[in-house]
Amino acid sequence: MNPDPRRARPRSSLGIHCTWAPDGGVDQASAPIVDMGEFGPYAGPHRLADAEIDGELVRITWDDAVQAVYHRLWLRDNCACADCRHPQTRERTVKLVDIDEPGRPEVTSDSDGALTCTWADGHVSRFDPNWLRQRRPEADGPAQPTPRLWTSARMADGLPSVDHHAVMNTNDGLRRWLDALSRDGATLVTGGPTQPGEVVRLAERIGWPRETNFGRHFDVQSKPNPNNAAYTAIRLEPHVDLPNWQRPPDFQFLYCLENKADGGESLLVDGFAVAGGLAEEDPEAFETLCTLPVDFRFQDAENDIRYRAPVIGRDADGAVREIRFNNWIRDAQPMDPAAAERFYRGYRRFWELLRDPKYMIRFPLKPGCMMAFDNLRVLHGREEFFPNTGKRHLQGCYVDRDLVDSRLRVLERT
Amino acid sequence: MNPDPRRARPRSSLGIHCTWAPDGGVDQASAPIVDMGEFGPYAGPHRLADAEIDGELVRITWDDAVQAVYHRLWLRDNCACADCRHPQTRERTVKLVDIDEPGRPEVTSDSDGALTCTWADGHVSRFDPNWLRQRRPEADGPAQPTPRLWTSARMADGLPSVDHHAVMNTNDGLRRWLDALSRDGATLVTGGPTQPGEVVRLAERIGWPRETNFGRHFDVQSKPNPNNAAYTAIRLEPHVDLPNWQRPPDFQFLYCLENKADGGESLLVDGFAVAGGLAEEDPEAFETLCTLPVDFRFQDAENDIRYRAPVIGRDADGAVREIRFNNWIRDAQPMDPAAAERFYRGYRRFWELLRDPKYMIRFPLKPGCMMAFDNLRVLHGREEFFPNTGKRHLQGCYVDRDLVDSRLRVLERT
Repeated sequence: MNPDPRRARPRSSLGIHCTWAPDGGVDQASAPIVDMGEFGPYAGPHRLADAEIDGELVRITWDDAVQAVYHRLWLRDNCACADCRHPQTRERTVKLVDIDEPGRPEVTSDSDGALTCTWADGHVSRFDPNWLRQRRPEADGPAQPTPRLWTSARMADGLPSVDHHAVMNTNDGLRRWLDALSRDGATLVTGGPTQPGEVVRLAERIGWPRETNFGRHFDVQSKPNPNNAAYTAIRLEPHVDLPNWQRPPDFQFLYCLENKADGGESLLVDGFAVAGGLAEEDPEAFETLCTLPVDFRFQDAENDIRYRAPVIGRDADGAVREIRFNNWIRDAQPMDPAAAERFYRGYRRFWELLRDPKYMIRFPLKPGCMMAFDNLRVLHGREEFFPNTGKRHLQGCYVDRDLVDSRLRVLERT
Repeated sequence: MNPDPRRARPRSSLGIHCTWAPDGGVDQASAPIVDMGEFGPYAGPHRLADAEIDGELVRITWDDAVQAVYHRLWLRDNCACADCRHPQTRERTVKLVDIDEPGRPEVTSDSDGALTCTWADGHVSRFDPNWLRQRRPEADGPAQPTPRLWTSARMADGLPSVDHHAVMNTNDGLRRWLDALSRDGATLVTGGPTQPGEVVRLAERIGWPRETNFGRHFDVQSKPNPNNAAYTAIRLEPHVDLPNWQRPPDFQFLYCLENKADGGESLLVDGFAVAGGLAEEDPEAFETLCTLPVDFRFQDAENDIRYRAPVIGRDADGAVREIRFNNWIRDAQPMDPAAAERFYRGYRRFWELLRDPKYMIRFPLKPGCMMAFDNLRVLHGREEFFPNTGKRHLQGCYVDRDLVDSRLRVLERT
């Protein structure tokens, strides 16, 4: 609107793949579109048969008679021309707040079967018919992997397992691993090397490790001056790591480098399945664990990290979305006796179910193998081990769910 | 219970400060307690005057006639003897699930004014009277810094500001900075060097940076092939970074190394204050932004990170706890026309208020200065700048709220 000689708006001169040249601006050249994800080709089968304005709405009919209705402001907001989306970042640059009233557009179905809207100020928006079809108001949201809850019977033949070489070297192996991790919440990567650092290299196939007060990665072995139970040799009850964080790590990887000590079998249990079991047999206990806030707290010389949340967290729709169970760092919080009565009853029963062989699996983790699990769903533990009988050395790190989901989406592009 | 010759339970031989020697176990030696936080000395003024059992409850009277009632299971669960807490990690090792029925304890107020409970199996728990006093059921939870919402008038003399040298070299400076950051959600650190990397050194006074798809830290300057709007020179509307993450960064630091370009003034606005303003003038619009889920999505060649959440997030108590406003990466999500009608009306008004000089402040960020702000509360932006007129170079990073809160607590110990 106000050309300024100091302005040097970037224009792409890259040889990037141009899939569908938008041509919406009044005085603008077509800008190439980066070929990625939703901005990729919409080589769908459909063309528009008809388009009409109806008050605030634009009504569309495709060539197979399917119809949809879009609000005119939604169309203006989602114009994909080079004035309305940055031609390189593809981010939205149009600001509805700056358009007093775009008006009711003149709509036509053009010769390519695309929708063209001409707005009150002369701006033209053009929409690919298949892009529109994907975004019908009644279209489903982006699909998320569906959790498949499990009991020990389903894992009788072992966890879903992918070969280390396939994960590190093939997109298919990586996809199979992450898909199982998302759905089952627990997987094995097998047959890898036993050099330190491999756990981080696996994380880097996805993105990068989430750093915590235990570092960017951590070594799990019996240490002389432990600051948490994992660095001792005691039995570790099934638990979630770092429930004392507002934002605990989503996924945990534990890679075995050496395991010669007696004992130390790994334990895993699907906490969502157990929460479901508790809800079924004792709805009152379940409700208590879903609603009574519990303090978790870790302290050492450098940290004092605490958070208050129920043991079982539900989302707005009432579905179980996280478990915070960790008896070591549950704080000595003030508690009303009536709440204590309810809490300890529910907590005990939940704990009994976590240990129940119906739910819990137990297996030795072998050198060169890594278990990866959803830290907020699948609780992990280990039997006591005996450091005097041999060395036991695991390396661990954490990875954000955002990165696992993102990697799966990027793999789906290929 | 089953002594095993392979067991070599760690016993501290460190010269750590022993504050209160617990003596609860039947056959155990006293173990020293690490002097930290809640496990520090309880040199409070109170002793018990009386203790009695009353059904499931233990009733306590201190020497100033104050009374409190504890559930017996709470006391058993929180026994601090060396069998019930690990003597080095201080984590809870007692497992109520393994104690069939601790019974109703015999209680006495001993000669030190402490509470002694003797359980059915002979186990003895001893509780410091001042520790118990702190944990009366009616005691307040741990204090969190209270947000002080602001409009531009309150910031007329500038943001709360602390000298770089004080932050880097004194506990008092660090505490003043983090306290202001927690309460006001926006601060300046002034008078620092202009060498690259200082932003990370400041983060390391607290903990460590949160790594994202923009790296462990990032450089904000006009770049030839930008993958997001911040790397261009365009005006940046007030926004939140990374609302497309399930877990966006909590705090953001932006450190100015060089700022010779015309334009580019920094913009900040307290989104919680604006949300409050919207709730007051237009409750229906506020409710729409609190409840209508919005898709946010960032894509480049390596990432496809998306999340769905309302623009205004409330906690279980209905208090505003996060803002997700970022027009660039708001996705082209399918939207029912009736929802679109409500959404665009509320969104426009919220945006107008974000820009309103009543709320927004504007200032030039000088070299050697860093602004630090609560990314989920205080929206940031900048005016357009003109790269042809001089260089502009900021460095940024993110820090977790867990770490800021933890650092403040550790500083309070000193």
